[in-house]
Amino acid sequence: MRITAIHSAAAPIASAIRNSYIDFSKMDASVVAVVTDVMREGKPVIGYGFNSNGRYAQRGLLAERFIPRIMQADAKSLLNDAGDNLDPQRIWAAMFANEKPGGHGERSVAIGTVDMAVWDAVAKIAGKPLYRLLAERYNGGQVDDKVFVYAAGGYYYPGKNITALQDEMKKYLDLGYSVVKLKIGGESLADDIKRIEAVIKVVGAGKNLAVDANGRFDLKTAIEYARALAPYGLFWYEEAGDPLDYALQAELANHYQHPMATGENLFSMQDARNLIRHGGMRSDRDWLQFDCALSYGLVEYLRTIDMLKQNGWSPRRCCPHGGHQMSLNIAAGLGLGGNESYPDVFQPFGGFADNTPIANSYVTMPELPGVGFEAKGKLIDLMRRITR
Amino acid sequence: MRITAIHSAAAPIASAIRNSYIDFSKMDASVVAVVTDVMREGKPVIGYGFNSNGRYAQRGLLAERFIPRIMQADAKSLLNDAGDNLDPQRIWAAMFANEKPGGHGERSVAIGTVDMAVWDAVAKIAGKPLYRLLAERYNGGQVDDKVFVYAAGGYYYPGKNITALQDEMKKYLDLGYSVVKLKIGGESLADDIKRIEAVIKVVGAGKNLAVDANGRFDLKTAIEYARALAPYGLFWYEEAGDPLDYALQAELANHYQHPMATGENLFSMQDARNLIRHGGMRSDRDWLQFDCALSYGLVEYLRTIDMLKQNGWSPRRCCPHGGHQMSLNIAAGLGLGGNESYPDVFQPFGGFADNTPIANSYVTMPELPGVGFEAKGKLIDLMRRITR
Repeated sequence: MRITAIHSAAAPIASAIRNSYIDFSKMDASVVAVVTDVMREGKPVIGYGFNSNGRYAQRGLLAERFIPRIMQADAKSLLNDAGDNLDPQRIWAAMFANEKPGGHGERSVAIGTVDMAVWDAVAKIAGKPLYRLLAERYNGGQVDDKVFVYAAGGYYYPGKNITALQDEMKKYLDLGYSVVKLKIGGESLADDIKRIEAVIKVVGAGKNLAVDANGRFDLKTAIEYARALAPYGLFWYEEAGDPLDYALQAELANHYQHPMATGENLFSMQDARNLIRHGGMRSDRDWLQFDCALSYGLVEYLRTIDMLKQNGWSPRRCCPHGGHQMSLNIAAGLGLGGNESYPDVFQPFGGFADNTPIANSYVTMPELPGVGFEAKGKLIDLMRRITR
Repeated sequence: MRITAIHSAAAPIASAIRNSYIDFSKMDASVVAVVTDVMREGKPVIGYGFNSNGRYAQRGLLAERFIPRIMQADAKSLLNDAGDNLDPQRIWAAMFANEKPGGHGERSVAIGTVDMAVWDAVAKIAGKPLYRLLAERYNGGQVDDKVFVYAAGGYYYPGKNITALQDEMKKYLDLGYSVVKLKIGGESLADDIKRIEAVIKVVGAGKNLAVDANGRFDLKTAIEYARALAPYGLFWYEEAGDPLDYALQAELANHYQHPMATGENLFSMQDARNLIRHGGMRSDRDWLQFDCALSYGLVEYLRTIDMLKQNGWSPRRCCPHGGHQMSLNIAAGLGLGGNESYPDVFQPFGGFADNTPIANSYVTMPELPGVGFEAKGKLIDLMRRITR
């Protein structure tokens, strides 16, 4: 068996929204199809992947480095020892050949996209949902049949007022979410407090609301917000400062006792390790949001989970960024604490399988081989069409 | 005045060499030309840049994000207040629009390449060597008329034996270098000690030899090497461990009293700051090797120098990676401690102006407007040809 082709294409993932740092009006994403010569139901098995959101498509790096390295490798060298399936770790190593250490951005997205497609193919070849395969390989067979998800929204967009914000949050409650997320840091603290109080009126309590500053604050502002946020007892206070400013994060912990979250803009095990070593994160309450699709894929995420365990952290403290089915599979198969969800934005990439309702902020896992893209009609249609 | 076009192309920078981490047989580099409507001697001023070495060309990111953002910006918004020259900081801000924080790799190379071309154009429009312009703007006018350089070589390549290694180092001495660099970590410690002793025989003393492990070692190996290297009193012991493993670097300082060096694989001010905060580097003896071309250019390097000063470090402790004329200008104009030089490899990108001999490991600065590419015949020929 072998990989017969890898197709790459890019699609808009644009939305007329912004957080405190960027607007998403020109955002796009790479889609990759890994085609194999393994036949299932009369058709070749194809694994699909895409690069989450927030970072751009990676046409160049995929076409020039990562896809050619796989296609030029000895096909046997990419298989498991039994020769009956692809080996994600070996494929990863082929992609990373002649890459220097450090500098983890962009290429981490390109490799993460291919890695997602490889795991999709591996689970399809094995004939089981990816989360079951992961649980068997790495988690003693233990599967979570439902996963905590929260509704990430509350973006800024032109003309959006408090009433529109409340209506958005009401919709999330109606969809079955009990925890929602709101962007902060794009306006003044006073305005943000108005938005926070308006949303709490809808969701009932501060513990049902997470807020996200998208790395916007310096230490002084982060602490001002911390003091203002503390009385609300929020679900979490996310990415107050620059994602690489571990010292800021560590100092902020001296000023905020409630849960904090960060990590979506750290793209390697080494960067994640630095957060754990130097960022003052508290393993009894804080949340880690590394997104495998942006950070070298599940092969690297497994290294990150090992690192976390060595440092006394449970995978239950992980709640990945990105709201995609890949992280949902990892959450269910490797026992993470939950997953982000975008009911409203980044379509058709955002969200999970069609016809899997959310209840009490938990989503039930579907039963089909692979990541489950085939259960998300508009997404699989797009993936098939653009990678043909 | 305005930028009329930005051309981008890629060229091989391949060599049949390897360090302990990668081989360079497929390495390439981006070349960028920033064309302006400013006329000098009857021709439009064109600024050139290239992306140093060790990371690959950035065709995709340049074509899809960074060049379009400049070309779509209001031309006036990219000029200085007087409107008589380009403003590198404003151009940088245009490139970084709608980029998220964190994830500093690849895009840092693409932006660094354009930034180099912008500074070349700015100095040409001002009619002076870049190092003089930098000294005037940022260093009280103080120029170093010569800069310390060391000969970086001693790579592994097929069939290279001790005699060939010694011949290579003799050649560097004949060229005027007194300090040379040797790769280690690609063979056993015992073999590396043989190579080190053979080179010391040529260069006279350990203080004339730097060694570079290219991030290969775990802590145990790094310490074993430290103990074995200490008696030689080397010029420096470079990049023992993973570039992001600040804790390893900090621990290693407890086992090695002689100078160490690192930083070539840290691509932003934030990453550099983490090295300073968490890496245990000693401002009285250690060396910092951030390469502006790989790390968002001189605009970001100025931020890094500010950060260093705030942390009690002198720019004299900087000796950038990359062996290019851009860092040489920065060294002469901003008072760095020196610059890498590749007499033998990465041609035609490696090395400085033609007809500027090295004496006692110092290179004299040429007197022509811009970065000085026009004084390096084969390089400027290539740049002009492929960006036409």
